[in-house]
Amino acid sequence: MPKILITDVVLRDAHQSLLATRMRTEDMLPICPKLDAIGYWSLECWGGATFDACIRFLKEDPWERLRKLRKALPNTRLQMLLRGQNLLGYRHYSDDVVRAFVHRAAANGIDVFRIFDALNDLRNLRTAIEATKEAGKHAQGTICYTVSPVHTIDSFVKMGKELVAMGCDSIAIKDMAGLLTPFVTADLVKALKDSVDLPLHLHSHSTSGLAEMCHLKAIENGCDAIDTAISSLAGGTSHPPTESMVAALRGTEYDTGLDLAAIQEIGMYFYQVRKKYHQFESEYTGVDTRVQVNQVPGGMISNLANQLREQNALDRINEVLTEIPEVRKDLGYPPLVTPTSQIVGTQAVFNVLTEKRYQTITNEVKLYLQGRYGAAPGPVNPTLQQQAIGNEEPIECRPADLLRPELARLTKEIEALATCEEDVLTYAMFPEIGRTFLEQRAAGTLVPEPLEPPPAPTGEPANSVP
Amino acid sequence: MPKILITDVVLRDAHQSLLATRMRTEDMLPICPKLDAIGYWSLECWGGATFDACIRFLKEDPWERLRKLRKALPNTRLQMLLRGQNLLGYRHYSDDVVRAFVHRAAANGIDVFRIFDALNDLRNLRTAIEATKEAGKHAQGTICYTVSPVHTIDSFVKMGKELVAMGCDSIAIKDMAGLLTPFVTADLVKALKDSVDLPLHLHSHSTSGLAEMCHLKAIENGCDAIDTAISSLAGGTSHPPTESMVAALRGTEYDTGLDLAAIQEIGMYFYQVRKKYHQFESEYTGVDTRVQVNQVPGGMISNLANQLREQNALDRINEVLTEIPEVRKDLGYPPLVTPTSQIVGTQAVFNVLTEKRYQTITNEVKLYLQGRYGAAPGPVNPTLQQQAIGNEEPIECRPADLLRPELARLTKEIEALATCEEDVLTYAMFPEIGRTFLEQRAAGTLVPEPLEPPPAPTGEPANSVP
Ligand SMILES: [Co+2]
Ligand SMILES: [Co+2]
Repeated sequence: MPKILITDVVLRDAHQSLLATRMRTEDMLPICPKLDAIGYWSLECWGGATFDACIRFLKEDPWERLRKLRKALPNTRLQMLLRGQNLLGYRHYSDDVVRAFVHRAAANGIDVFRIFDALNDLRNLRTAIEATKEAGKHAQGTICYTVSPVHTIDSFVKMGKELVAMGCDSIAIKDMAGLLTPFVTADLVKALKDSVDLPLHLHSHSTSGLAEMCHLKAIENGCDAIDTAISSLAGGTSHPPTESMVAALRGTEYDTGLDLAAIQEIGMYFYQVRKKYHQFESEYTGVDTRVQVNQVPGGMISNLANQLREQNALDRINEVLTEIPEVRKDLGYPPLVTPTSQIVGTQAVFNVLTEKRYQTITNEVKLYLQGRYGAAPGPVNPTLQQQAIGNEEPIECRPADLLRPELARLTKEIEALATCEEDVLTYAMFPEIGRTFLEQRAAGTLVPEPLEPPPAPTGEPANSVP
Repeated sequence: MPKILITDVVLRDAHQSLLATRMRTEDMLPICPKLDAIGYWSLECWGGATFDACIRFLKEDPWERLRKLRKALPNTRLQMLLRGQNLLGYRHYSDDVVRAFVHRAAANGIDVFRIFDALNDLRNLRTAIEATKEAGKHAQGTICYTVSPVHTIDSFVKMGKELVAMGCDSIAIKDMAGLLTPFVTADLVKALKDSVDLPLHLHSHSTSGLAEMCHLKAIENGCDAIDTAISSLAGGTSHPPTESMVAALRGTEYDTGLDLAAIQEIGMYFYQVRKKYHQFESEYTGVDTRVQVNQVPGGMISNLANQLREQNALDRINEVLTEIPEVRKDLGYPPLVTPTSQIVGTQAVFNVLTEKRYQTITNEVKLYLQGRYGAAPGPVNPTLQQQAIGNEEPIECRPADLLRPELARLTKEIEALATCEEDVLTYAMFPEIGRTFLEQRAAGTLVPEPLEPPPAPTGEPANSVP
């Protein structure tokens, strides 16, 4: 009897974290028979940024990818990451679009919907959870982990209970930034397992080199399932290696029951695949513990560095890193994840570059302070709110309550370019690049971005001193 | 009060594991003030393969390196790795040479002598431990961890007790191959701490991605000190990142008390230094769990691959990997570490390439079966022993008991090329390349092996999908 369940994220989060989400379907399908034979609890293979990357860069139909994966992985649950009411886009959608999206994802092959909201505002999960249940699929409610004065173990347990009440089938802790430490994980998992009678999954990024230890402490404290990535796409901003976690638990009461040698073969495969995408590798792929000091996620730091470089202001990065916690505090301590990481980061850049804090307030910060993303986790700075939105009353309701049904309109707008509801949803997610994609598909002119040839080998493999 | 002590191995094992031991003193000294300020229990910075690499490749005087490090690190214990009666060479030395070596190492700056024997034959540690104590320094007795029918927790505890009786100041578990798993570590550490009243240090390589978890379980079970490496030279065949372990323990009863931000600055430094040695990087620097399946250490696999490639027989490597456990069993299950890894590996290659097992028996295997390296951990194959050494009686005594004092002879042989006892010891370690080194030094013709220029950057840093 396997005790600990494994979700392998090699087909989604691993290449999203390490290779800018560029892995192509053609590199997934050949290994699917071996992946399917392992006996994973699930394979995360869709959602997150993969939909965007398919349309924008790979010129692949993401729905087609899903159908192919479904066919190639008949024995394994397929899992996707869904940004609640944002789905896979960057705004809130009306409920009819959310429902349609979940139903089409289910019909095309998704079994497990991991659903989160950047603010942990559970109202933004409600429709997606309901739709998942309607479709007869597994709804995994997600707690975004972060560190702040308003995020306590009690607050996370409260969320867990609410997710139970909303009908979730399991709960995931999502540590997108690698902020968890082993002993905090132990306390958090224990508290959740003591109060919430649902299977608990842990998703922790290896960024700061703590994720394996967090997994281990989670398991010892009752966590049921962990997310890992095949070793050749593990570590760094990705996840703990599947092989290492399987080896760590072998022969213990937590044994995963998975065949280590079989997983190693898959590791060899992705080792070769990774080379094909070398142009998307970060310069540094090792451990980066800075998030443990300044709470700014590693991915956010590199985005900021790019943003500052474009404005010839890379030398201001340390000021921006110092400013980010201030902006985050003013906004009531949102977890830093898409889209809040961009909202906070861009405002921090403005605050530094304009020399006067909030001289310029971005549109997104205004929307945030209007309550248009949902409720902030903690109280926002009232002075800033007044300055940003004047005497306008912030909304108290669920943001999507203000949205009228829009599926019909979207269907009408995209017209014959959409050959099925899935196409309408593609257009809904990405009005510009989605339309372009559908046009090019119709015209037969889809061309994926080119890949650079493999680099010449540099140096000989090291010979050990005898 | 810091609870867990840290030994940072960045100046020795980290670059020995990742960069073929090639880091030069000039790249160590600039960062020494920062390293010295951290408050490490010790810095491992000498011994192992560094002596050999200095003489053979870097054309640096290893004694001079030690004196420079001592001066640059006035506040931190300096630690070396010593192969017991083998010292830093590849044969057994007479006791007078061992004593002289330890005394000169102590006089030049070593505070902590970590002393091991490849067979765990403690008689091969005795003289080095005694000499360390005579010199007023810290003698750390080492248990080489391995997996076999004759290596049990009880057998390791027995060793631990013997090391106490021999006067050691602390005990180290040396997991050179990354064979330890977290729950085995827990049991082993607990058993040792229950029976042995000495500080316990854990040295586990990250090869299979389990070392952080092993460290954590060791700490929870009473381990006093762990070995780590600055993150930019951590992971892979090296060690858990110092920063990650410090972050993992912060704010807990096991807090190291070290300043994470200060260590991060050192990480940035070595990140740059590492680039200089890119030609010595392994092609693959990630996690490799194969040792957890076949018990063959990763470093040994790459050496074998090189050996087979030279004989145009790389396609036989899987046969060799299958043969290694057989040879190891025939030899009474030696741990696989210098020199036993070479002894077992080379014999396994012969067994495969000559098509008949033990048709050729290497000289080293003959010496091993004569007892010339010490006592095998378990019974050796009597048929093989008979075939290898005929009716000759294997020795029962400590191998060095058969060696006459040799320091005077060595001093005479090297004559005026040696300007001090340290030079004689250099010659003693490496009769050929040591002599050449001393000759070239006298002639002023020492030239370090050249370093390749840094490679052209490949591709842009990855931009995350928004
Ligand atoms: Co993730
Ligand atoms: Co080592």
